[in-house]
Amino acid sequence: MEKFFYPDSIAILGLSSRENNVSRLILANLIRWGYSGRIFGVNARGSERQVDGVRMYREIDQLPIVPDLAVALLPARFIPDTVRACGSFGIRRMAIPSGGFNETGAKGEQLTGELLRAAADFGVRFVGPNGLTIANTANGLCLPFTPLYRPPQGGMSVITQSGGLGLSLWNLIADEHLGLAKFASIGNKLDLDEVAFLNYFARDPETEIICLYMESLANGTALIEAATACDKPVVLYKANTTGAGSRAAMSHTAAIHNDDDILDAALERAGIIRIETLSEFISVTKAFRLPPMKGKRIMAMSPAGGFSVIMADLCTREGFTFADPGREFYEEVATYGNAGIIDVSNPLDMGDIYDPRAVVDIFHAVLHNEQVDGAVYVNQWPRMPVGDDIFSRMFHTDLSLETMGAIRSAGKPLAVCLFGPSKTITKIKNNLSIPIFDTPEEMIRALKVQQEYYARKNRSPEAPARPAGIDRERAADWIGSHQGVRGEEVLELLELYGIKTVRSRQADDVEGAIAAATDIGYPVAMKVVSPDALHKSDVGGVRLGLSSDAGVAAAFGEIRKNLADHQAQARFDGVRIAAMAGPGYDLFVGGSHDESFGPIVFFGYGGIYVEVFNDIERALCPATAAEITHKLERLKCNRILQGMRGKKAADSKAYADLVVRVSCLLADFPQIKELDLNPVRLLEDGSAVLALDGRARIEAGS
Amino acid sequence: MEKFFYPDSIAILGLSSRENNVSRLILANLIRWGYSGRIFGVNARGSERQVDGVRMYREIDQLPIVPDLAVALLPARFIPDTVRACGSFGIRRMAIPSGGFNETGAKGEQLTGELLRAAADFGVRFVGPNGLTIANTANGLCLPFTPLYRPPQGGMSVITQSGGLGLSLWNLIADEHLGLAKFASIGNKLDLDEVAFLNYFARDPETEIICLYMESLANGTALIEAATACDKPVVLYKANTTGAGSRAAMSHTAAIHNDDDILDAALERAGIIRIETLSEFISVTKAFRLPPMKGKRIMAMSPAGGFSVIMADLCTREGFTFADPGREFYEEVATYGNAGIIDVSNPLDMGDIYDPRAVVDIFHAVLHNEQVDGAVYVNQWPRMPVGDDIFSRMFHTDLSLETMGAIRSAGKPLAVCLFGPSKTITKIKNNLSIPIFDTPEEMIRALKVQQEYYARKNRSPEAPARPAGIDRERAADWIGSHQGVRGEEVLELLELYGIKTVRSRQADDVEGAIAAATDIGYPVAMKVVSPDALHKSDVGGVRLGLSSDAGVAAAFGEIRKNLADHQAQARFDGVRIAAMAGPGYDLFVGGSHDESFGPIVFFGYGGIYVEVFNDIERALCPATAAEITHKLERLKCNRILQGMRGKKAADSKAYADLVVRVSCLLADFPQIKELDLNPVRLLEDGSAVLALDGRARIEAGS
Repeated sequence: MEKFFYPDSIAILGLSSRENNVSRLILANLIRWGYSGRIFGVNARGSERQVDGVRMYREIDQLPIVPDLAVALLPARFIPDTVRACGSFGIRRMAIPSGGFNETGAKGEQLTGELLRAAADFGVRFVGPNGLTIANTANGLCLPFTPLYRPPQGGMSVITQSGGLGLSLWNLIADEHLGLAKFASIGNKLDLDEVAFLNYFARDPETEIICLYMESLANGTALIEAATACDKPVVLYKANTTGAGSRAAMSHTAAIHNDDDILDAALERAGIIRIETLSEFISVTKAFRLPPMKGKRIMAMSPAGGFSVIMADLCTREGFTFADPGREFYEEVATYGNAGIIDVSNPLDMGDIYDPRAVVDIFHAVLHNEQVDGAVYVNQWPRMPVGDDIFSRMFHTDLSLETMGAIRSAGKPLAVCLFGPSKTITKIKNNLSIPIFDTPEEMIRALKVQQEYYARKNRSPEAPARPAGIDRERAADWIGSHQGVRGEEVLELLELYGIKTVRSRQADDVEGAIAAATDIGYPVAMKVVSPDALHKSDVGGVRLGLSSDAGVAAAFGEIRKNLADHQAQARFDGVRIAAMAGPGYDLFVGGSHDESFGPIVFFGYGGIYVEVFNDIERALCPATAAEITHKLERLKCNRILQGMRGKKAADSKAYADLVVRVSCLLADFPQIKELDLNPVRLLEDGSAVLALDGRARIEAGS
Repeated sequence: MEKFFYPDSIAILGLSSRENNVSRLILANLIRWGYSGRIFGVNARGSERQVDGVRMYREIDQLPIVPDLAVALLPARFIPDTVRACGSFGIRRMAIPSGGFNETGAKGEQLTGELLRAAADFGVRFVGPNGLTIANTANGLCLPFTPLYRPPQGGMSVITQSGGLGLSLWNLIADEHLGLAKFASIGNKLDLDEVAFLNYFARDPETEIICLYMESLANGTALIEAATACDKPVVLYKANTTGAGSRAAMSHTAAIHNDDDILDAALERAGIIRIETLSEFISVTKAFRLPPMKGKRIMAMSPAGGFSVIMADLCTREGFTFADPGREFYEEVATYGNAGIIDVSNPLDMGDIYDPRAVVDIFHAVLHNEQVDGAVYVNQWPRMPVGDDIFSRMFHTDLSLETMGAIRSAGKPLAVCLFGPSKTITKIKNNLSIPIFDTPEEMIRALKVQQEYYARKNRSPEAPARPAGIDRERAADWIGSHQGVRGEEVLELLELYGIKTVRSRQADDVEGAIAAATDIGYPVAMKVVSPDALHKSDVGGVRLGLSSDAGVAAAFGEIRKNLADHQAQARFDGVRIAAMAGPGYDLFVGGSHDESFGPIVFFGYGGIYVEVFNDIERALCPATAAEITHKLERLKCNRILQGMRGKKAADSKAYADLVVRVSCLLADFPQIKELDLNPVRLLEDGSAVLALDGRARIEAGS
């Protein structure tokens, strides 16, 4: 990959000086950006000796050396043969911007296959097709085929599945004085994908933060692994999250739709920062240019009372706490006040401080105060007739040097938001080495993202302890002999993973049911066994609290009749007799298999409320106890489990342990494509957590 | 109010040419802005004949005429006497920017009282204190005391409770080529408040849209009335919505905290547009500069596929539907394509169209298509080396004239978002009479706000039909004789408003209970009556399905014992015997009295889920059936009422009728400070909606 971004020589295929030759724009970019490697031009149909001074060759194999990289912006139908020609000459790296492959339907799919075969035959690695490919501000490499100025060099590297959208970031980067390191527009990413570039940028010394715009994440597991191993902030904008977005994406970069909630769980696991608006690429990158905020205690400041009120709202909503810098600090601040009506509180209303030097003294005192982890400041740099008055001094004195000094000496962030005419603000931004934010909202959000990133990073990683009492071998045997859709018997499998269930037995007829009930001990529950009864209680297939042989006999008849009434053709496989569990809270635990991220465990409160309130958490498998506990605490229904209106709290810890065990089961056996434990009862007296019923779909193999 | 914004003469009190005389900055603004009325200076302690050419007077009563307006930027302690002096000379309008009143605690409160008395004694109306007061771009009136250039004249009028924040909008307005009409920074709004200015701006021909930044809404009811009567869009940013925001606000403009959910209900009633970020003041104002979007059918377009995907996501999330412009349209579009790989869908990926004129043709065809209500377009205006290549032509051809023509001739909105260097974009904005948005997110959000505003406006207002069968007179009698906290007996009151309840009777002893049960008819329910049992079931105070005298006798004893066990000192007032209602869905209806907005009715699914999921809707009283039905449909629990898993749907209409009746009751009798009907049972067979239990707190008087 290194040679992709730092090639010593490049061949531009299809180059000519004809009007509208787009490859020539690539050459122009390389020259304009000052790329210093050797450049060759190739054009089979051309007769030119040189284009813009670059020597032309008719065929690839006429080149005097094997170039490190070849750029092939040619109609799609020529690409497979071109790749073969390059490969057979010894070229191992290609940039293929051309469209017309798997994003265009059947014909494109065929070309896609040919391209992949050609590349595989010769060991050619490539970026694209259908993307602007790559650029590197460190050495002037610029392969996108639109005319481009070289943006300022900086720490942001971009991986994008849309070239146009990626380029729109360049304008913002320049305005914001942030700077670009490397750029990869990967298009259909048939070979090198976001994971390959992420792994490379993670090691690239020029890259400080990695921004991804993605429409599909085909290999989610690899992305999570790469991001987990990456020691730099990774920021992701995931488009194509709605049905309509998905349709637009299918035609654009042949993107596959991901389940958005699963994606959230996966990103959380890897510490990837997910953003919801494009401008957050900029605001989050700005926040990471400040020193780390090591705690939640914030100090908010503004000379405009309105901004103080807004910041108070925003800081509260984002989960910051307001620092208490102490009486001494406020007494110092009060000495700067003019009319003595300054309010000593946090947010600090500095409206009464007309001496600009005092502002800097306060910044310094705030950042060096031990009770403060970071600070935010909103002010204006208005377009204002400048006279010798206090307002002009107050608003237009340049405090940037001392402000930056205070930030660097304290090693804490002070985020600054300035309102003013865009021309003035852009000028200020370009003169400073600290970021200036455009709105209080983006500033406080981005600072929170930064604080949480470092908080997560500084937590010692939890050892992925596997719970005791798991019999994987016997579970493998059980799964080997139980394929297809399975009902309550799946509880046997769970027991092998140390999960408590209720005792139960299946019975085909009345006599068997009575025998089972006698064996288990009254009272018992009875549930229909039928592949046609998806929700047993909906078909009248459940009877609880049966306490006599006669009751069991009567219930058996009723359940069979209800099933037949519900659906005449329904298959009746008997009933399952189970011990009655005590009263409690009924939750559920489910499992599914995501194409991109593998096995997923999900859980929450059961009953109809699952569907209505969508109060569900998800985790990749296997999950750790700390992770599940954290997610369980985030569920709204957790308040119910804590005990409401005088009820005792449920044993959440045992429930979390059960979820972890399920996650281990799903991770150990990817054959389990679906799992549904419902209900999982947390007994009201806290004595146990029991899986009462279960279903699973198990595929053969692997 | 007219003379506040169009005074023929102004007196500036406390004016002098001493250094740091801030009143002089007001004079400078008036002169700089070209205010053409007469100006006088007053300074009791000064000896100057003139300041900046303006003639000075020692006392107000020496002025040659009575000015239309006096500005008093003096220390707070001088303000009450100054108001008296102005008032006794005949001045009826004052602008008072000074701080130091009720925002500063006890001392300020006293001055506040004196100011209000002085103004009342002489009939002086004033804006302030503690605000920048007013400005008017139509006549050059500028009273804020910071040096200010005159912003471009336009249709946006601003009412703000924070001067600094209000001024920050001016910079944005100028950059965005939007233009300001009138400005009112109302500070502590002791006399003229947001309602007074809203009413005036509603009539002001210069004003097209009214933007409010508010930290408190003391007189919510009046605001709702004013906004309802106003035929222009009213946009509100409500700060001070969290506890911390509230603390900051108390010291800033002495704001009172509003319940945020009630506020939402109130704003919805009045059609006020609530925004959550400051920059929405700009984006929403931009959207209203476009023709009205009369339906939800949108066409999204971009030459960058990534933006198409993003717009598809955003349009879906905001609730737009994708227009189907028809085969003919797509065939026309296909003729413009270059490589024939253009995708004929909505969003329309125009990446293959390199002829800029084709873009304009497509805009025209889209806007004049009968299936399209409005359109959005995202593109770049990148910083790009301009050569004679297709990209430079594509990105830098000026299409604005034809685009604006298409918009005006179709009378439909085409919202445009451009990415580019801020300098370029600012220049473009200033050359156009259509708005340019900065991000796809704000564009699509703002267009949705605009579309919904016009949709609401075009709905014929519902006649506030009062339900039949309300006996207000007997209800007044009932309330007159039932004050304080009342239990289940409140069901009697509800019956007078046509609400069905279950038959019930209270009984003090076992004999009475049996007699009541016999009278009502078995089976019955029994509930404890006690001021100490807030939640009856939590103290073991409820028994259901009692079917015999013996059962009633036993239950009576148990309930009494449970209450005593729960709390030894609890008062036992007997039990209430009620007919058993059939099975069904248990919802609740509540009432409260908001200080700012008066009586509020709220409703939702009952049980512990109310607290956990906060699935509650609210409405001001009285509410209409259509309003309640609409809100009921928005509740998540509405899916349950529709019948899930084979259950029959509940009678939502009867429930909505019940809520409307409660809202009438609350509106008729503001003495009812709290009301709690819980449960209200929607019988599963759809036969009835019954209030099963109730509580109320009724105050004496009014």
